Amino acid sequence: MAEDLDLVLERTLDAPRELVWKAWTDPSLLKRWFAPKPYEISEVELDLRPGGIFRIRMVGPDGFDTGHGNPGCILEVRDGERLSWTSALGPDYRPAIMGEGCESFPMTAIVTLADTGDGRTLYRAVALHANAADRDTHARMGFQEGWGKCADQLEELACELAAEPVR
Amino acid sequence: MAEDLDLVLERTLDAPRELVWKAWTDPSLLKRWFAPKPYEISEVELDLRPGGIFRIRMVGPDGFDTGHGNPGCILEVRDGERLSWTSALGPDYRPAIMGEGCESFPMTAIVTLADTGDGRTLYRAVALHANAADRDTHARMGFQEGWGKCADQLEELACELAAEPVR
Repeated sequence: MAEDLDLVLERTLDAPRELVWKAWTDPSLLKRWFAPKPYEISEVELDLRPGGIFRIRMVGPDGFDTGHGNPGCILEVRDGERLSWTSALGPDYRPAIMGEGCESFPMTAIVTLADTGDGRTLYRAVALHANAADRDTHARMGFQEGWGKCADQLEELACELAAEPVR
Repeated sequence: MAEDLDLVLERTLDAPRELVWKAWTDPSLLKRWFAPKPYEISEVELDLRPGGIFRIRMVGPDGFDTGHGNPGCILEVRDGERLSWTSALGPDYRPAIMGEGCESFPMTAIVTLADTGDGRTLYRAVALHANAADRDTHARMGFQEGWGKCADQLEELACELAAEPVR
């Protein structure tokens, strides 16, 4: 089963779906939650269209630095519902050159949002891998803890946005 | 320049654009021209939507056989105008496992059709590679001759379709 090659994070976030989407797709907001603290996102490029670039640079207090990061490619954008991108391709679908660390294997990420009906959001992030070895590498790198911690930060930020006065 | 990593075939085909598109996107028609004769396409899977499968099996009188072929992924479908797919991903965007021969490196193909204004079709097929080595491998495998011969066969088939009585 291909699904066996996936890693999945599923959470119910106590924030409205449109604000979770906003925190995901506005680069200046994405920067604030997409790295598990104390790591930080120092650079974001996000061109929200199929074929558009998705690139981040992550840095840490321990000197960790992804460098400019390998540019990935946005695959699907369904407003407020679904965002997919892959590291197997770069912008405009050119096959990517693999990098180091968490960029050393190709991965496709599919993020879906759904209303729970009580103002909360079902948040699902799935990482698709080519084979079991890549899946296991990704799991050992801390997919669950990393994406889990980021989901907490995402929820917190979306709640802050909800509390802000509408301008 | 990223474009330096591309291989490009450009031809003006003496056939109407909608029939060239039809010959490209109807699996039973694709089968008739997509391999340079005497090679043949013995199997086609083509699910014409972003994320859909594109898989072919090519066989030759010399015993050449790609086997079932690595399933690639359709990226863009703009009716009558543009079709893109990649071998870097499989169906539903899962990163692909590379195969052998012409499937040993990741490639994205972008096919565009345009009216010339006199009933003919400007046909452009671009192969995008990750690096110069893959581009050169693909060139040595005979990209120009192979795609060129297939373009002749495509033109011939589209002309046959044009000559058929409308049913």
